[in-house]
Amino acid sequence: MALDMLLARLARLGDRVRTDDAALAAASRDESHLSASLPGAVIFPASTAEVALVAREAHELGVGLVPRGGGTGKSGACLARRDQVVVDFSRMNRILELRTADLYAVVEPGVITAELDRAARERGFMYPPDPASWESCTIGGNIATNAGGPRAVKYGVTHAYVWGLEVVLPGGRVIEVGRRSIKGVGGYDLTSLFVGSEGTLGFITRATVHLVPAAFEVQTAWLSFAAPLLASRAAERVFAAGIRPRMLELVDRVSMDLVRPVSSFRLPEAGAALLVETDGDAALPELLRLAEAAQADDSAVAESETDREAMRRARRLVSPRMKEAFPHKLSDDIAVPRSRMADTLAWAAERAAAAGLRFAAYGHLGDGNLHVNLLCSADELERGAAVRAAVLAHTIEEGGMVSGEHGIGLVKRRELAQQLGPEVVALERAVKSVFDPRGVMNPGKVLD
Amino acid sequence: MALDMLLARLARLGDRVRTDDAALAAASRDESHLSASLPGAVIFPASTAEVALVAREAHELGVGLVPRGGGTGKSGACLARRDQVVVDFSRMNRILELRTADLYAVVEPGVITAELDRAARERGFMYPPDPASWESCTIGGNIATNAGGPRAVKYGVTHAYVWGLEVVLPGGRVIEVGRRSIKGVGGYDLTSLFVGSEGTLGFITRATVHLVPAAFEVQTAWLSFAAPLLASRAAERVFAAGIRPRMLELVDRVSMDLVRPVSSFRLPEAGAALLVETDGDAALPELLRLAEAAQADDSAVAESETDREAMRRARRLVSPRMKEAFPHKLSDDIAVPRSRMADTLAWAAERAAAAGLRFAAYGHLGDGNLHVNLLCSADELERGAAVRAAVLAHTIEEGGMVSGEHGIGLVKRRELAQQLGPEVVALERAVKSVFDPRGVMNPGKVLD
Repeated sequence: MALDMLLARLARLGDRVRTDDAALAAASRDESHLSASLPGAVIFPASTAEVALVAREAHELGVGLVPRGGGTGKSGACLARRDQVVVDFSRMNRILELRTADLYAVVEPGVITAELDRAARERGFMYPPDPASWESCTIGGNIATNAGGPRAVKYGVTHAYVWGLEVVLPGGRVIEVGRRSIKGVGGYDLTSLFVGSEGTLGFITRATVHLVPAAFEVQTAWLSFAAPLLASRAAERVFAAGIRPRMLELVDRVSMDLVRPVSSFRLPEAGAALLVETDGDAALPELLRLAEAAQADDSAVAESETDREAMRRARRLVSPRMKEAFPHKLSDDIAVPRSRMADTLAWAAERAAAAGLRFAAYGHLGDGNLHVNLLCSADELERGAAVRAAVLAHTIEEGGMVSGEHGIGLVKRRELAQQLGPEVVALERAVKSVFDPRGVMNPGKVLD
Repeated sequence: MALDMLLARLARLGDRVRTDDAALAAASRDESHLSASLPGAVIFPASTAEVALVAREAHELGVGLVPRGGGTGKSGACLARRDQVVVDFSRMNRILELRTADLYAVVEPGVITAELDRAARERGFMYPPDPASWESCTIGGNIATNAGGPRAVKYGVTHAYVWGLEVVLPGGRVIEVGRRSIKGVGGYDLTSLFVGSEGTLGFITRATVHLVPAAFEVQTAWLSFAAPLLASRAAERVFAAGIRPRMLELVDRVSMDLVRPVSSFRLPEAGAALLVETDGDAALPELLRLAEAAQADDSAVAESETDREAMRRARRLVSPRMKEAFPHKLSDDIAVPRSRMADTLAWAAERAAAAGLRFAAYGHLGDGNLHVNLLCSADELERGAAVRAAVLAHTIEEGGMVSGEHGIGLVKRRELAQQLGPEVVALERAVKSVFDPRGVMNPGKVLD
């Protein structure tokens, strides 16, 4: 009813409002394990003014709005119900300014992440955040989830690259927060409040993001080990020596076996591997020497950009290949203090084994942020859920976070509440009410 | 009246509550141009529980509380009135944990910034934020103001180093926000909301701060130029070549003349100078070559840590020496996009000259953040105020911020409101109300 009224009021948007099956189906999924959920409509705004119109009318009618970027999220944050409307940002995909002398770009939210990095690289700069899905995810989605990626080990996550935002608030007000200068203080950091808010506070319609100089040599290598624990010890030695690689990724045997058939880089047979990449001062030869001293069996060093990209692509293929092979897998991106990573990983693997479940792990070893996977079949899901709950509780006990980079969405609301505690949850709800008093922005996500 | 009741209720704190003239006078000033303001009392809590007690009782009685770190702020944020109470954190000054393998330290708010950096350096790490006052300012104050410093040009400001906080809220509730793992998402970033909040939301009683590896060679040099504009052009060439120095500070002739008599480094006679420092991959020789090509007249390269420290100290002495020589000076730490810095500086110097005022500038050229000073005598203050207002308005027009790092406190409230606009100010007030509904935390600061 309210939805029909909303669609009537948005008639002037013409074919930018879609209710046909194809459009609804395309917006019904992300990359989480959740089943498809059809929204009531999908809107494809082409400007801030159109977003503001939608925000104003939906606020008045109390219709829930769900922002959507590339649909590559793993938490269900962009899924909507039948009485809600998806707002898809794929038409707002322009790079508006590339001011490299001032170290920033201004972009619309629908810009594909890898495209921004390529545009920056043509001028000798880079946009560091590089989620595995960066050929299809968007800057708007990255900001909404505070996305990470392999390069975070040296460069940090999306949060470090968001200087300022234009935001459309529920009710349709358009505000600008943050800065275009490298430094700047004054008032509360509302920009950071939107980063990682998973679409629950307002629509990001424009972002000023930081670019960094990239006039350096990059070196990439694939190091094989007999077991993940040995790879982890090698990583500890590298960090203890003060080397700061720009990528230090763990891939286990299961992951490599899944990727090998589709990888142009010929993955060696091994119990585990580290994909390492250095730039600038972080010397690859010294890193390799340390890794060999720590029982690396074998190392392949990339000799061209094609080689380097083949190695990185092998790493990026792990998640989609695993999902294809194990559609019912339960996956978590836990984060713990770095020195607790190896033990936490061993603990999780043992629990999985004790429950008779296949287990795989890969990810950002250097950041203490790993993707742990219970490779369940459909009948094993109940056992899987119990192990998963135990792993997340153990993560909290270790001083960690139930999500290192994927976010909460629909899939970890209970665990987040447990991690934060009731006092902080109450504060967060109160902050939400300041921006969205009627609760129309991404209802039911994150805090429920 | 309310104040007397509060002091009666805090009797159990014994000599940690002071109302004697010496204590009140010591808490009556910061490093702004504001005149002394005596508080009603000064409390020196020794634990989170004592802070919570103060917060609870003051909230109930409606007495304003003003947190104080090292008292080195330049905006009056730590000044209190007769009916308010200063809470001084100098007794909560312990480094509680130094977990370098996990890249963090846990500290109490009263830890002196340089002491944390020294403790980290003993283990091959560093705490990058280095405000000029770092031998007397505190981590708590740095977090409350989101302090910068020379090394920010490579390492970023305090915000980038705050992972988590323990905070006492008005009413006495103690919450923990943020993380101890390198990565982590979930819920709103309340940690960032406290960073730069200038004591208006709650008391920071413990902080988890990020340490970075520092196993590299550091090189430092002092480059002379005929004029600030030439120094600024040299800096542009350095950045265009992709070099990332860890310090790139401008000092003008007036600043050097003031510091020369008290500096152990013999400052060359010149129209301007750049203090540059490199570490890791950023090569000093290449930087010097570029600077010479861009008309550097002369360069002194430090040959020992003693030399390096003498150069840095010369830079740090500029502010206190200038304040001593021109006690009525009007000083602003404006920030603009880096490419607008040279023009903005020239514009400000011309305005000062047209008004017959002496002018000096120094600071973080690489960050587009300079300290511009109108060296007024007492009778010139009226003219000075007009020029200052014009410079700040021009800064906003250039897409900049009225404060790059010092903050707002009492001295820039009007200008901040102008910069943010009424919509954002209203949102910030609403956020403030969530944490401090009765308005007892640092009343009247920042947003008024």
